[in-house]
Amino acid sequence: MSRRPRAVVVVTGSELVRGERTDRNGPFLAAEALKHGLDPARITIVGDSPAELEEVLREGLQAEACLVSGGLGPTHDDRTVELLARAAGLELVVDAELQREIEAVSRAVAERLRRPYADFAPGVTKQATRPSPAASIGLAGTAPGLVFRAPTGCVVVVLPGPPSELRRLWPNAVESEPMRELLARARPPGRRVLRLFGVSESAVARAFEEAGGDGEGVEATICARDFEIHVDLVVDAGAEERADELENALAVPLEQWLFARDERRVEELVLSLAAAGGLRLATAESCTGGLVAARLTSVPGSSASFVGGVVAYADEVKRDELGVPEELLAGYGAVSAEVAGAMAEGARRRLGADVAVAVTGVAGPGGGTPEKPVGLVHIHAAGPDGSLVRVLDLPGEREQIRIRATVTALHLLRALLTGSRDEGV
Amino acid sequence: MSRRPRAVVVVTGSELVRGERTDRNGPFLAAEALKHGLDPARITIVGDSPAELEEVLREGLQAEACLVSGGLGPTHDDRTVELLARAAGLELVVDAELQREIEAVSRAVAERLRRPYADFAPGVTKQATRPSPAASIGLAGTAPGLVFRAPTGCVVVVLPGPPSELRRLWPNAVESEPMRELLARARPPGRRVLRLFGVSESAVARAFEEAGGDGEGVEATICARDFEIHVDLVVDAGAEERADELENALAVPLEQWLFARDERRVEELVLSLAAAGGLRLATAESCTGGLVAARLTSVPGSSASFVGGVVAYADEVKRDELGVPEELLAGYGAVSAEVAGAMAEGARRRLGADVAVAVTGVAGPGGGTPEKPVGLVHIHAAGPDGSLVRVLDLPGEREQIRIRATVTALHLLRALLTGSRDEGV
Repeated sequence: MSRRPRAVVVVTGSELVRGERTDRNGPFLAAEALKHGLDPARITIVGDSPAELEEVLREGLQAEACLVSGGLGPTHDDRTVELLARAAGLELVVDAELQREIEAVSRAVAERLRRPYADFAPGVTKQATRPSPAASIGLAGTAPGLVFRAPTGCVVVVLPGPPSELRRLWPNAVESEPMRELLARARPPGRRVLRLFGVSESAVARAFEEAGGDGEGVEATICARDFEIHVDLVVDAGAEERADELENALAVPLEQWLFARDERRVEELVLSLAAAGGLRLATAESCTGGLVAARLTSVPGSSASFVGGVVAYADEVKRDELGVPEELLAGYGAVSAEVAGAMAEGARRRLGADVAVAVTGVAGPGGGTPEKPVGLVHIHAAGPDGSLVRVLDLPGEREQIRIRATVTALHLLRALLTGSRDEGV
Repeated sequence: MSRRPRAVVVVTGSELVRGERTDRNGPFLAAEALKHGLDPARITIVGDSPAELEEVLREGLQAEACLVSGGLGPTHDDRTVELLARAAGLELVVDAELQREIEAVSRAVAERLRRPYADFAPGVTKQATRPSPAASIGLAGTAPGLVFRAPTGCVVVVLPGPPSELRRLWPNAVESEPMRELLARARPPGRRVLRLFGVSESAVARAFEEAGGDGEGVEATICARDFEIHVDLVVDAGAEERADELENALAVPLEQWLFARDERRVEELVLSLAAAGGLRLATAESCTGGLVAARLTSVPGSSASFVGGVVAYADEVKRDELGVPEELLAGYGAVSAEVAGAMAEGARRRLGADVAVAVTGVAGPGGGTPEKPVGLVHIHAAGPDGSLVRVLDLPGEREQIRIRATVTALHLLRALLTGSRDEGV
């Protein structure tokens, strides 16, 4: 089996190398490199110190692909293009066509901001400057993505730092001539995924060992993510049979927790199930404060099934907007199975939904009591044919508690919509 | 002014370099290094390929501090210690005392799992093996953290991969003899921050150039984040006066957009302002689907001011839960200034709030029309003394449109609560 071409990812940003912000581009580019059959060998995050950045780029140019993110802005500390040219021993040229494109964008910005275009002109020339063999793969705002082959033979892809812009331009990089030539030699591995909910990481690891573990062209990672366990198999060409074996040897004992064999997120599954059943969805949230609704509405087209939700933070809102009886609030407290149930039924009734999920809990750090400690969360999913409930006792901090309650609420909706009464949820 | 000692962070893990999981140790160690007066020069993430890892470690040993995370487990593919010794030209020795400590932990594990200790013995010897000058700084499970000075002079800190274990052992590393010697030469920097909203990155960059730029012991980063511009100054000891100058030279011309000189997020400012004024807050969201409420409720203690919100995705919910008149919905459409205003007033009235913000827009990718394209968002913040409105024409994709509308809505609330009628918002 031939070796996969070696790829190095270089991410630049002072705020990243100082740990002020967590990089998202490195993992994205590495995963994409692997998907296209390259071997992601390292991800290096570096600041805007010219000497340091140049050295890291010089190392990157020793690989067969060097994927670079960030440092393309109009300001003095955006030096990626200049230093790449120096590290590769290439001349810099101002690209006249690119300059016209960037100028058009900048003029529109200047007009919108009611500022003279002259303020923008130096930035435009800087951003239209590229290493001589580089070609633009499109603009992100005023920053062009670039692709070129360096004298070392390395295919260099230069992308803007903002993650959404980087993701938008990446497909253009893949379609560029130098990348297509490189990828023709690459062997994209197959990929199998198992998505589980409600089982421990060590139980999955044990099942995996009992199934024979990885090797023989199959490489596995098992990874816990907000209560879900994601099993990913990277499968070399020729190892498909071994991958089938391993996949089944995992799927059978873990079946009750297995919710997907593809990468759709739980909110997508919930919306598909609702749409298939012609059911309208609603939410009623206290401690998650809108996160369940936000996850559902992150899916394009969610308005086909999701009608809306109430963020009922204060007790008065639970009472007035969701019709939770005062007696329940007074008798059991806002964080109780009874109130969760009344919130879900209230959301169904008030918002005209068929199915609703309600979440009420103590997210902390304050507000806990010995009877109702921080991390206690009640979740109730109600539909026309019955309901499912869950009580959680979550460790961790406020944001972790809120996210895990959100994920559990979505899985409870999924279980209700699949008609499962499964305790694995 | 003396240069800060250069620090390199090396993170190992196959799932990290493949982008299947996002590294949290690199940013933590880099931020800690900076806080203690080191210069975090790069963070490199690498898999378990021995050649690649050894080369990255060899590069790390050229720095004055090399902070390494991961690869300390009992199995054959955990090679960090072995490869560090090779890269540093140091002998490996089995530490008898360490071996006794690890054996005690392993015997307890063996007993709990009802497995013979013999299964664990080879792992114990492996994990008790260290480069000759290294000292243990404590165990994480059966993996020791290590500190030593390499022949290059580099202080090497080796920590376990699980983030919580790494964070637990880190203070021991800081207290170790080699690190204390190094940190005696380090000069922890000061920090200044300016947070702006409503101004372009290039306008800030220009003001920064006009203020004389960085240098002279002040290092700046200017970074656009979801419509906000974050300016961070890292200030060497002795450069405080220059930092004051620069800070003021930025703050004066940019005053109308400056919303914070500390790291509080806009949602924290909104909640502080509301609490100070004794005002109750609510939200009414369509296209942001709960994100504004989720941001507000991410702040501990937000229940003191935030009463709740309505996610009014369907028109019926806008009408029935927020009292938006049918005529407005029919006459102007759900995405209109009129409906945004009615949503905000409805949220105030229905939820018993003093101040409410409403968001309605076309998040896409579908649903756009020539008159109301994807990215059109109406925001309306209403309070007892009046209201502020904003219309946005946002580029980008669904999630970006939603996030930027959310950030703008929070800033509009902030402006309303500060009593500003400022067009900069």
